[in-house]
Amino acid sequence: MINQLLNTLSLIGIFAFAVSGALFAAEKKMDILGYILIAAVTAIGGGSLRDLLLGVSPVFWVREPFPITLAMVAAVLTYFLLPLLQQRDRWILWMDAIGLAVFAVLGAEAALAQQAPAIIAIVMGVMSATFGGLLRDVLCAEMLTLMRPELYITCAVTSATLYVWLSTIGLSFAVAAWLAFAAGFSLRGVAIVFGVTFPRFRS
Amino acid sequence: MINQLLNTLSLIGIFAFAVSGALFAAEKKMDILGYILIAAVTAIGGGSLRDLLLGVSPVFWVREPFPITLAMVAAVLTYFLLPLLQQRDRWILWMDAIGLAVFAVLGAEAALAQQAPAIIAIVMGVMSATFGGLLRDVLCAEMLTLMRPELYITCAVTSATLYVWLSTIGLSFAVAAWLAFAAGFSLRGVAIVFGVTFPRFRS
Amino acid sequence: MINQLLNTLSLIGIFAFAVSGALFAAEKKMDILGYILIAAVTAIGGGSLRDLLLGVSPVFWVREPFPITLAMVAAVLTYFLLPLLQQRDRWILWMDAIGLAVFAVLGAEAALAQQAPAIIAIVMGVMSATFGGLLRDVLCAEMLTLMRPELYITCAVTSATLYVWLSTIGLSFAVAAWLAFAAGFSLRGVAIVFGVTFPRFRS
Repeated sequence: MINQLLNTLSLIGIFAFAVSGALFAAEKKMDILGYILIAAVTAIGGGSLRDLLLGVSPVFWVREPFPITLAMVAAVLTYFLLPLLQQRDRWILWMDAIGLAVFAVLGAEAALAQQAPAIIAIVMGVMSATFGGLLRDVLCAEMLTLMRPELYITCAVTSATLYVWLSTIGLSFAVAAWLAFAAGFSLRGVAIVFGVTFPRFRS
Repeated sequence: MINQLLNTLSLIGIFAFAVSGALFAAEKKMDILGYILIAAVTAIGGGSLRDLLLGVSPVFWVREPFPITLAMVAAVLTYFLLPLLQQRDRWILWMDAIGLAVFAVLGAEAALAQQAPAIIAIVMGVMSATFGGLLRDVLCAEMLTLMRPELYITCAVTSATLYVWLSTIGLSFAVAAWLAFAAGFSLRGVAIVFGVTFPRFRS
Repeated sequence: MINQLLNTLSLIGIFAFAVSGALFAAEKKMDILGYILIAAVTAIGGGSLRDLLLGVSPVFWVREPFPITLAMVAAVLTYFLLPLLQQRDRWILWMDAIGLAVFAVLGAEAALAQQAPAIIAIVMGVMSATFGGLLRDVLCAEMLTLMRPELYITCAVTSATLYVWLSTIGLSFAVAAWLAFAAGFSLRGVAIVFGVTFPRFRS
């Protein structure tokens, strides 16, 4: 039951990150293998880092082929449906926002499942959430999305922290995960739409 | 016997990647330690990623010192023989092509050896083949070789897929590995010489 | 006893690298979460790579929360004390020099503790010493510190090699570690102050 929910969330995040990666490949006018590569790296990067750091071995997508297949299908779909997509940079931001909130929750959960303390679970959530997009940006030689002025890391911190807190006070996995996902995703959505930035100590 | 063939292929790939890394260091006018660093990272990067993702621990070059020593020797040789090398950018491409095809085969084999399904073996081959060169390019702040217009990822996909297929239909390791290496390397060679690019869906 | 000395050295290195990362974040005018992210990645990057390559699982900062907490505290301190710091680029270089020498020693020690041969211990020391700063530079899209003209990798090689040699001839851990740290740090200090570069074979 928990595993099924984890899986569903994971597949949503993988699909969304894969689409964001494929759209970056489109911006760079790559061929279809480039779409697949960037999509796959974006989609599995964060979860791979999470598994490596936690010592879960081998990493999740080596254990069974569905995640990587899904990322490839998402890349091919994006390739052929591209002419139908308007405002691709907006699509990139929103797909990335879904992946960001999903992997923040899943990273935190994976650390908690190994009895890691809260602070480590939060850090693991933030790293899982941001690493796939980071690889995508480095591969495409783009300005790093996590360095954009509007709230980004904050949203990952929100999802991860909320998930850890809700789990600790005893909410069921499903409720905790969806609330935490919704909070991080909504915050990122507000940041995208209104350009919200973090308050600064100095001007 | 299989291990010996794997080792020979591995050392050819390590030497070739190390030379390509050292030649990048030459382009950047680094000192000899820079040659050794870039050569070592290029040569062991892909195999290290492969071992980490598959959960082979510790990674291959920690288990015995020959690979890293070979990469260092290749770097020092390149440093002193540099004045004899004409057309260094061509040398970089060809040495890189050897390493690319070798590590595509070895990455796929390592995944198959752990009973991974074919698609995961192919992905592992492609990642092993491209990661060392990727690190080299990032360290040297160069345009990523895998983003060049002519066929590159395609060659890694060719070697990895062919190896997985030939293994599955029962060919001996030696025959499968050399055929798969030869196919990927030849394809890359043709791409370098004639500038072949992947056909595109849209102009 | 050995563990306590290892821990002390490690915490010095983590604090110093975290401050260097936070100062980079300051240069880039990031918000406080950016300070914390860059500080944490710089501080734990080298040790994480070391543990991953050696198969120490999970990595050190997942096992107990103090290192990551220390890096965060260093980032927050840097954020609030920033107006008091003159010549921030100098501070970055000196903090980085401490981390460089510390992690060269600790990386070499971790490899020796697993009975790795000397050459592998030296390579592991150099990689541990340089990887955190490398991640910091890539994240901040800065010129890589390890590509600066004055001695840098040389200092990591010095600390790691000296530590391996002193351990081999039987000195106690404490003496070997502090001597090796002092040698690499002093060499880097001289290189920073006087701009010493590696002698080159060709002009």
